[in-house]
Amino acid sequence: MSALYGRVALIGLGLIASSMFWGIRRGTLAGEVAGYARSAETRATARQIGLCDEVCDTIAETVKDADLVVLCVPVGAMEAVAKEMAPHLKPGAVISDVGSVKRDVIDSVGPYVPEGVHFIPAHPVAGTEHSGPTSGFAELFDNRWCLVTPAPGVPEAEIARLEAFWRGLGSNVDRMEPDHHDLVLAVTSHAPHLIAYTMVGVADDLRRVTDSEVINYSAAGFRDFTRIAASDPTMWRDVFLTNKEATLEVLGRFTEELFALQRAIRTGDGEHLHAYFTRTRAIRRGIIEAGQDTSEPNFGRGSGGGKGEV
Amino acid sequence: MSALYGRVALIGLGLIASSMFWGIRRGTLAGEVAGYARSAETRATARQIGLCDEVCDTIAETVKDADLVVLCVPVGAMEAVAKEMAPHLKPGAVISDVGSVKRDVIDSVGPYVPEGVHFIPAHPVAGTEHSGPTSGFAELFDNRWCLVTPAPGVPEAEIARLEAFWRGLGSNVDRMEPDHHDLVLAVTSHAPHLIAYTMVGVADDLRRVTDSEVINYSAAGFRDFTRIAASDPTMWRDVFLTNKEATLEVLGRFTEELFALQRAIRTGDGEHLHAYFTRTRAIRRGIIEAGQDTSEPNFGRGSGGGKGEV
Repeated sequence: MSALYGRVALIGLGLIASSMFWGIRRGTLAGEVAGYARSAETRATARQIGLCDEVCDTIAETVKDADLVVLCVPVGAMEAVAKEMAPHLKPGAVISDVGSVKRDVIDSVGPYVPEGVHFIPAHPVAGTEHSGPTSGFAELFDNRWCLVTPAPGVPEAEIARLEAFWRGLGSNVDRMEPDHHDLVLAVTSHAPHLIAYTMVGVADDLRRVTDSEVINYSAAGFRDFTRIAASDPTMWRDVFLTNKEATLEVLGRFTEELFALQRAIRTGDGEHLHAYFTRTRAIRRGIIEAGQDTSEPNFGRGSGGGKGEV
Repeated sequence: MSALYGRVALIGLGLIASSMFWGIRRGTLAGEVAGYARSAETRATARQIGLCDEVCDTIAETVKDADLVVLCVPVGAMEAVAKEMAPHLKPGAVISDVGSVKRDVIDSVGPYVPEGVHFIPAHPVAGTEHSGPTSGFAELFDNRWCLVTPAPGVPEAEIARLEAFWRGLGSNVDRMEPDHHDLVLAVTSHAPHLIAYTMVGVADDLRRVTDSEVINYSAAGFRDFTRIAASDPTMWRDVFLTNKEATLEVLGRFTEELFALQRAIRTGDGEHLHAYFTRTRAIRRGIIEAGQDTSEPNFGRGSGGGKGEV
């Protein structure tokens, strides 16, 4: 594929930005990639491992002459970055982001977008429990979905070019209305993460069960929660604070349903439980058929990595 | 390793029993293995794939002359099996089981154990989301834990032999008091499973989000819940009905904690959230160091299987 953008600027050099760089290089999607991270340590690491063609010490230098600027910082940090970079943006440039929440990003970044610069929010639904500049890999976005939530009035050609860019990174692309995006992600991501964090915290608290017991017997199911609950704390704090309403709505429904099942356990209503557990199997099949997970037992973990569910 | 038992009888031919058979063959742990399943279809499948040296049509034939009988049926079915096999057991035989709950199994099987027969309950903490006679594999128990909960008065030599048998299947072995076992598993397995089942059910219910959206964007975290929620419904119904108190206690603590985090989201208490999410990372590290999971991103899923979190 030939380069879709001349200069791409990546603001923030964590898992997503570093994976984007390796993916851009794999697909030759840009002429050059400039990167910036607030922490001098992260910039030094990036330079050591050859992450980005150029690592800059200021946001101004990084976005200078950039055709595409991608904000890869936690959602709560986007407004400050947008404000700082605004005066240095090239006319006609495209600003995008990779935030897990879209409405809040639109409201906080939008006001700082200069005339003649196009803001096209996006969210690559991909990642791992690892974070930081060394955690990226070119295949992260392969066969994952990237959701684009453009504002009305943005030139279709620019939206199409950004979508081609994400396809070049290996993603499937879909367009969505920002508020609907935030509700869908509250269901598929935000609520599950809070629940996993909660369960792991409870296990750690329960005085009558030692941590070594929790750890040794985690193969029984708990283990999968701990992986989710190992994700970046700052990123997730910001997600919950900025997608408050949708997350709380889904958690409300979750609690309602959980209470119904607790009641079925208490009253010994086996039929209710069996029917409920049978229904949930179908969703799993759908995910495997859609190519969003492997049908290998335990995600195809190696034996060393440990199989195990009970 | 030389055979530890002459004839081993496996009652119930699902994931655990079929994995035990392939593991027994791998380690030459028994002279012969007889198997029984209530369903004629399962028995036919077992005969087709060479599961067990002999597949019997009755429990009486299966346990006849067996030195070790392992109950591999759902916890709720154990009492009926114990009652039916009791008259046919060989003096000096050992009865064991693989149930995920121990107190209830002891109370329901114990009364049917004849004089001179030794009952040694056990729980291999291993499995996958798949079930049935074709789902087994010899490596299932490698590096997993098997918890043995012997009653007082059982000859130490018989306990040691059963423990050697599980080590031969690849497991680490630990002894535990039955009620403590049930609490530990409520934390590491039973509560997490109910929570996963609940979240998957909620996603399926939420009318404003389509199933295809839930499925396509599941890589954001939800996916891992669906794997857990794809486990065998009958087995899990029985687990919750027979480990009621411990499961409800842990779920009570979980709800308490979840409400505290919901409140932090509602009030915008970012510090509380960040501190909580930071603490849960340590548990994940412990599990990886204990060899109970892989440190590969997304459990080392292949790219085809799909990586993805966030």
